[in-house]
Amino acid sequence: MNNHTTAKPSWKDKLHEVIFEADTFWGKAFDVVLLIAIILSVLAVMLESVAQIKAEYGTTLYIIEWFFTILFSLEYIARLTAISKPWKYAFSFFGIIDLLSIFPTFLSLFFAGAHSLLVIRSIRLLRVFRIFKLGRFIGEASQLTSALRASRPKIIVFIGGVFILVVVLGTMMYLVEGGENGFTSIPKSIYWAVVTLTTVGYGDIAPQTTLGQTLATLIMILGYGIIAVPTGIVSAEMSQQKSVRPVNTQACPHCGAEGHESDASYCKKCGGRL
Amino acid sequence: MNNHTTAKPSWKDKLHEVIFEADTFWGKAFDVVLLIAIILSVLAVMLESVAQIKAEYGTTLYIIEWFFTILFSLEYIARLTAISKPWKYAFSFFGIIDLLSIFPTFLSLFFAGAHSLLVIRSIRLLRVFRIFKLGRFIGEASQLTSALRASRPKIIVFIGGVFILVVVLGTMMYLVEGGENGFTSIPKSIYWAVVTLTTVGYGDIAPQTTLGQTLATLIMILGYGIIAVPTGIVSAEMSQQKSVRPVNTQACPHCGAEGHESDASYCKKCGGRL
Amino acid sequence: MNNHTTAKPSWKDKLHEVIFEADTFWGKAFDVVLLIAIILSVLAVMLESVAQIKAEYGTTLYIIEWFFTILFSLEYIARLTAISKPWKYAFSFFGIIDLLSIFPTFLSLFFAGAHSLLVIRSIRLLRVFRIFKLGRFIGEASQLTSALRASRPKIIVFIGGVFILVVVLGTMMYLVEGGENGFTSIPKSIYWAVVTLTTVGYGDIAPQTTLGQTLATLIMILGYGIIAVPTGIVSAEMSQQKSVRPVNTQACPHCGAEGHESDASYCKKCGGRL
Amino acid sequence: MNNHTTAKPSWKDKLHEVIFEADTFWGKAFDVVLLIAIILSVLAVMLESVAQIKAEYGTTLYIIEWFFTILFSLEYIARLTAISKPWKYAFSFFGIIDLLSIFPTFLSLFFAGAHSLLVIRSIRLLRVFRIFKLGRFIGEASQLTSALRASRPKIIVFIGGVFILVVVLGTMMYLVEGGENGFTSIPKSIYWAVVTLTTVGYGDIAPQTTLGQTLATLIMILGYGIIAVPTGIVSAEMSQQKSVRPVNTQACPHCGAEGHESDASYCKKCGGRL
Repeated sequence: MNNHTTAKPSWKDKLHEVIFEADTFWGKAFDVVLLIAIILSVLAVMLESVAQIKAEYGTTLYIIEWFFTILFSLEYIARLTAISKPWKYAFSFFGIIDLLSIFPTFLSLFFAGAHSLLVIRSIRLLRVFRIFKLGRFIGEASQLTSALRASRPKIIVFIGGVFILVVVLGTMMYLVEGGENGFTSIPKSIYWAVVTLTTVGYGDIAPQTTLGQTLATLIMILGYGIIAVPTGIVSAEMSQQKSVRPVNTQACPHCGAEGHESDASYCKKCGGRL
Repeated sequence: MNNHTTAKPSWKDKLHEVIFEADTFWGKAFDVVLLIAIILSVLAVMLESVAQIKAEYGTTLYIIEWFFTILFSLEYIARLTAISKPWKYAFSFFGIIDLLSIFPTFLSLFFAGAHSLLVIRSIRLLRVFRIFKLGRFIGEASQLTSALRASRPKIIVFIGGVFILVVVLGTMMYLVEGGENGFTSIPKSIYWAVVTLTTVGYGDIAPQTTLGQTLATLIMILGYGIIAVPTGIVSAEMSQQKSVRPVNTQACPHCGAEGHESDASYCKKCGGRL
Repeated sequence: MNNHTTAKPSWKDKLHEVIFEADTFWGKAFDVVLLIAIILSVLAVMLESVAQIKAEYGTTLYIIEWFFTILFSLEYIARLTAISKPWKYAFSFFGIIDLLSIFPTFLSLFFAGAHSLLVIRSIRLLRVFRIFKLGRFIGEASQLTSALRASRPKIIVFIGGVFILVVVLGTMMYLVEGGENGFTSIPKSIYWAVVTLTTVGYGDIAPQTTLGQTLATLIMILGYGIIAVPTGIVSAEMSQQKSVRPVNTQACPHCGAEGHESDASYCKKCGGRL
Repeated sequence: MNNHTTAKPSWKDKLHEVIFEADTFWGKAFDVVLLIAIILSVLAVMLESVAQIKAEYGTTLYIIEWFFTILFSLEYIARLTAISKPWKYAFSFFGIIDLLSIFPTFLSLFFAGAHSLLVIRSIRLLRVFRIFKLGRFIGEASQLTSALRASRPKIIVFIGGVFILVVVLGTMMYLVEGGENGFTSIPKSIYWAVVTLTTVGYGDIAPQTTLGQTLATLIMILGYGIIAVPTGIVSAEMSQQKSVRPVNTQACPHCGAEGHESDASYCKKCGGRL
């Protein structure tokens, strides 16, 4: 719709431009309003989960919830209308998220508590990158995701190995420590092994016997080495991604000196204005 | 066995192809069934360790355990039969794991609790990479392990240094904090030092005195720098790994050695034709 | 002021050299005395916050606080006097910090406790790098900050993604665990999700149900992969930083701008002679 | 002493060869015995700190301690005798450690508990790298240390910045949470800030108020980014260190094929023995 039609665009084209793009004024305005609405509606859901706030402002929050749900329902219908292939949108990543963002309110009519699922709306915030310095951030995001995609097989191999390691280590600790020290079952011991290997270390379960602590020490030092692996994978992949850097090409109009930093307003050699 | 024999293969050759390889339909089917059996048997052992589940389904789980043990015993015998040099398989990494995977059930007839060791079966899951997008994942795995192998001497030096550091720091905290704050002995203080340096931080032992907390602060900032070292080692090694050597899934029909390069026509271990 | 004036410098020039530069003896001496004064005054504020020490030495610490505040006020006035464009200094990063470093004492006359804000003085310690092996450290610092600046868009994208993830995961745990296990509200569950994903793991809130622990296990392993991303970003950026641009300690006598390259003869901000 | 004297070496030369080198049989044997003695003596000190063990075997451990102290004293005198410039050894890193390794026992005659300092002996274990595959490990160690030395200025700048950050953040939490939630003084709050930023997270002090938890969340996400910095520094430095890799240069004597892996015993092309 951007530069290839000279004929007057139809209302559908205009709607598409406003809703799906962010290059025109109205397109950008729509996205900004939408993002504010998303943030407000997610905040409302969060606040409702706090007991004191619900007790005091419960009704207000309930109204706000329905207000935003109806708003987003209208937006969803508008999106389906504006696009020429509605099913493609409906089954796209954002299409499904958009539907899931309005569904839980209706579901909560039947199941109490279901409306907490509304925080799924926060995923819609990913659209934020379309507004601010768009190209740049999307470029960075795609660089990030392509680095992650390239290292996916290595990470799957790695997580597979960690999974097996954690099952074996957890069982060893279950046998060594036993139920009286909190290691009541193999699944719980595996939970402990993950907590330890990932260096989270809640401390809700911790080894008490000398043998258990010795074993735990070895697991931690092992975890030390293991945590290096995913970092190494991603680092190596990132290093191979070429990054485009802004280069300042200014030459001083007075003395011709080059290589000024981007924040320079005056020539560092002759003092003339750049 | 793949493309160089025109004569009808013997039943032993066929068995070898089904059990040790995953390139044909039956070979792949066998591996898939095997992996499902491994996962189910490991799950059964895990569930049995949960007190409530054992109380209710104890007998069923006991039967399942013996069922899988007998199944894996038959498989182990089949493996020994199919290969021309059984002892080489028996003493290989997977050969030993396969034996250890059936042993604990028989052991549990004499020692109660020994059957928890059956989770060692989960190590057999490493075979999973032979099935899905095989060559690729094996390539990635070998790239990972070769990067780790290349950085092994550096990591040994590093762990040696950390070990000495942890002994010295642990003793210092033992002298500073003393038994009344949980640092009851030098080994326990060393355990604390490892928990802190690796940033696990259970909190089951934590410094209480001002001097102890000051010292702990320094140790943590030190740990900050130290955790960077293994990551740096692995990252640097990964960055230098460039070519993915394609490896295939063939196992030598004579000695069972795996990991042959795709262009190999003869086993690099025993010289037999692949 | 260094090598291009043959005329006798005015007292204002001399004051500028002593206060803003560290290349001459008196300039260095001034900075050393200043840093010691900053450290002592920050220590005094810290000690006053310890109940026992305040009870015993309260009056002494009160006098010390006022002594340093008056000293730093005089220094602030001297800085404003020495520079030819006082407002540029007053609104620069260090100018604002210098003002904030004296303000809380006067504020504490009206609001008790406000003087704890004096620790903001510690930010002034950043000047320390101007004294010791100066050029080298400033070069390193600017290398660090330029690596961080270059990776800023990637890090913003990353933190945006983590923020959304944490909201969704926190809500899931809120629904699974519920208030009786410490997950009393969505904001608190988000706090838990951050504590877990960043591998801090206090353990003040920890999942108790089997489903909750399983979910937590997945979150931790996810966090394992996620923590690799910022490290990978910074590592890759650092690897690409090659040349250390030598920077000197000169500050422009006209506008106070710092960070000029060693070959600069004119201020890159206002065009004045250095 | 190795290859440049043809005359019969004096007893002093022989002693030097045995004590300070590890290339001859006796030199290696001496080092192995020494390392075992060090490990045993450190173990004895550790065991003595465990209350039950001291109650039972106290006298035995006391005798062992004096036995090793006298042994190491004799060794120290022998080292001073064997070397031509005794003072150079006495003031070298290992010379000082060797002296500190015997001193605490004599000190414990006057101050009870001083003998715990004997664990300083464990630093002597650094000599272990002289024995096993010497050159290789020392090469790796020097590569590690040179990478760390090269990144030292960056790390000092970084730790300086973290120090200031931690003081400011700690004070903010002290003001927000206050004494009733465990943040009893600024130093204690700084301790908490370090525990959090380094992702150790004991949980002995944890924010209780909503504002405190929100602030803590921001600190943790900040720490997420910050932990990436030292890793990035070391990774970048390591990547620039060139590593020497063992290359297998074997060519098959039968068919001339090259590029065999180091563990290959047979040619992968023609099956001939390599």
